[in-house]
Amino acid sequence: MKKTAYIKDTQNWMNEFSFSHEVSVRFSETDMFGHMNNTVPFIYFEEARIEFFKALGFMQNWTVASSDTIPVVADLQCDFLKQVYFGEKLRIYVKANELGTSSVDLHYMGKRENGDLCFVGRGRMVQLNKHSGKGEAWSDEQRNLFFSPVSIKK
Amino acid sequence: MKKTAYIKDTQNWMNEFSFSHEVSVRFSETDMFGHMNNTVPFIYFEEARIEFFKALGFMQNWTVASSDTIPVVADLQCDFLKQVYFGEKLRIYVKANELGTSSVDLHYMGKRENGDLCFVGRGRMVQLNKHSGKGEAWSDEQRNLFFSPVSIKK
Amino acid sequence: MKKTAYIKDTQNWMNEFSFSHEVSVRFSETDMFGHMNNTVPFIYFEEARIEFFKALGFMQNWTVASSDTIPVVADLQCDFLKQVYFGEKLRIYVKANELGTSSVDLHYMGKRENGDLCFVGRGRMVQLNKHSGKGEAWSDEQRNLFFSPVSIKK
Amino acid sequence: MKKTAYIKDTQNWMNEFSFSHEVSVRFSETDMFGHMNNTVPFIYFEEARIEFFKALGFMQNWTVASSDTIPVVADLQCDFLKQVYFGEKLRIYVKANELGTSSVDLHYMGKRENGDLCFVGRGRMVQLNKHSGKGEAWSDEQRNLFFSPVSIKK
Repeated sequence: MKKTAYIKDTQNWMNEFSFSHEVSVRFSETDMFGHMNNTVPFIYFEEARIEFFKALGFMQNWTVASSDTIPVVADLQCDFLKQVYFGEKLRIYVKANELGTSSVDLHYMGKRENGDLCFVGRGRMVQLNKHSGKGEAWSDEQRNLFFSPVSIKK
Repeated sequence: MKKTAYIKDTQNWMNEFSFSHEVSVRFSETDMFGHMNNTVPFIYFEEARIEFFKALGFMQNWTVASSDTIPVVADLQCDFLKQVYFGEKLRIYVKANELGTSSVDLHYMGKRENGDLCFVGRGRMVQLNKHSGKGEAWSDEQRNLFFSPVSIKK
Repeated sequence: MKKTAYIKDTQNWMNEFSFSHEVSVRFSETDMFGHMNNTVPFIYFEEARIEFFKALGFMQNWTVASSDTIPVVADLQCDFLKQVYFGEKLRIYVKANELGTSSVDLHYMGKRENGDLCFVGRGRMVQLNKHSGKGEAWSDEQRNLFFSPVSIKK
Repeated sequence: MKKTAYIKDTQNWMNEFSFSHEVSVRFSETDMFGHMNNTVPFIYFEEARIEFFKALGFMQNWTVASSDTIPVVADLQCDFLKQVYFGEKLRIYVKANELGTSSVDLHYMGKRENGDLCFVGRGRMVQLNKHSGKGEAWSDEQRNLFFSPVSIKK
C-alpha cells in the first residue's frame, strides 16, 4: 500500500479497527468512467461514522432538537487504493485514533469481502455547542466510550 | 413527443413557460451507462422550483426559522424523452399549472440549448403549517404572484 | 391514502408485492427541513429495482460490457404520503405491474417497519438495444420471469 | 485560518489561484443540521477541476470513448473553515500545485462573494492508461498547459 502520512504501520493500523458497517455500491453512485465516483467514500464515511456514534450511544443525543451540541466535521480525507465497481459490498471500518478536548480524529478503511483494501481515510470531528458556536469538551463518560470495545456490527 | 397525461397540447404547453433556470450536467451525476442518471432531473426540478419561488418572493419566507409554513412535495413525476450526457447545459423551465387551496401543481421541462426537449415533468407542492402539520391556504397576494409575469432568468 | 391514478384498490395493490429491499435513510439524504429530501425515493427505487432485476437474473446480463441491451428509464413518479426522517429503516417493495413488448411498468411502495406506507410510485423501464437505440422485445423466458414468485429478500 | 500541512503561507497560497468556477448551494445539498452537508465540497471540487481541465483543453480528450487515458483521483482532502448554508454562491478556485510524472497535485479553495474562505482542499489526480491500468506520463505540451495563465472564468 502507498504510504499515507496518517498510517505509520499498515498492519498495526488495520488491526486496531473493530467496528464496521456494510455498504453496497449503488448504481447511482457510479459515473461514466464505469466505477464508483470519487465523492462517494465520503458518503460511506458519514454513514459508518454515524453508526459508530450510535453504537457508542452519542448520535441519539445529537439528533434531538433539544440537544445543546452537534458534531461538526473539521476535515476529511480519503486515499483511493483500488477502483470500486457497481454492486460491490464493502465493509467500512471506523475507529477513534486520537481524542482532543472537544474533537476526535476518526480513521476509516473500506474493504472488499475478499479482504482487498479499496480506500482509507481520516477526519476530525468537533463537538460544537449550538449556542456559542464553540467546541464543547467531551465528558469523561464520552472519553471512555470512544475506546471501549465496540463489537463488529451485524 | 410521447403523450403524457398532464400535457394536452405540447406546443401550447411549451409556450406557457416563461421562467427558466440553467443547469450543467455534473460528472458525478452520470452513471456507468454513460449518461445522466435517472434520479438527477428531480434534483434539477427542485433547484429550478426554488429559483422560481425566489423570483416570486416566496422562498425567502419559507427558509427563515421563524416561518410558520414550509413547502412540502406531495408528488413528483418525470418523463425521459432523450438521453442526456455529461457537460450538457440544460434550461429547466417551471410554471404553475393549477392552484389548489394550499397547493400548486408545478410543471417542468428540461431543454437543450438547441431546443431539444430532453425531459418533462410535474409535481404538486403543498404549503404546510409547521405546527398543525396541515395545509395552509395561499393568501390572495400569493395567488396573484403565481401567475404574474416572471421574466426569463439570466 | 390519497387516491393515485395507478392504484385502483389499495389493499389489493399492496398484497400483490412480494419482493422487497431494505434501505436506511442516510444523514446526507436529509435536508434543512429536517426530513428525507424529496429526490431520495428515486435513489431507493433504482436500488430496489436493480435488486429485483438481480433476483430475476436480468441485471447480470445488462451490466457486462458485451451486452447488446441496457434497461433505460422511460418515466418515474412518486407520491409522498408521510414525512420520513434520518435513520429510519424502510422496506422498498417492487413488482412488475404490466409488460409491454419491450417495456415493463414497475410499481413501488416504501414502508416503515411498523407498516406505515410512506411513499408509493411507479415507472416504466424499456429494454433498449445499444446499437439501434430502439426497444428490444422481451424473450419468452424474460416474460415468464417477471411474474414468477420472487421470495421476500433477506 | 487553522494551519493545514499543505498550506505554508496562506496569503501567498491564495494569491496563486487564477482559475475559478461558481457554484450555488442546492437545497438537496443541505442536511438536517441546517447547513451544507460535509460530502458536498468534493462534488464542487470535481466540478471545478473538470472546468479547469476543460479550460486547459484536457477534458475533451478524456471523455471520448476512443481515449487511451482517463484521469483518476488518487486522494482528496478538505478542511472546513466556516459553515455554509443553502443558496450561498461560492467561487471554487483550482490550481496545479505540483506535477509528478503522470500525476498532478491540485489545490482548491471555496470562497464566499464577500471573500470569506469557507473550505480549502487538495488532491492528487493520475492520468491512467486504460489498457495497462498504469500511469501515463504527461506530454511536454500538457506540462506547459498546467502552469499557463488561465483567466478567471465568467
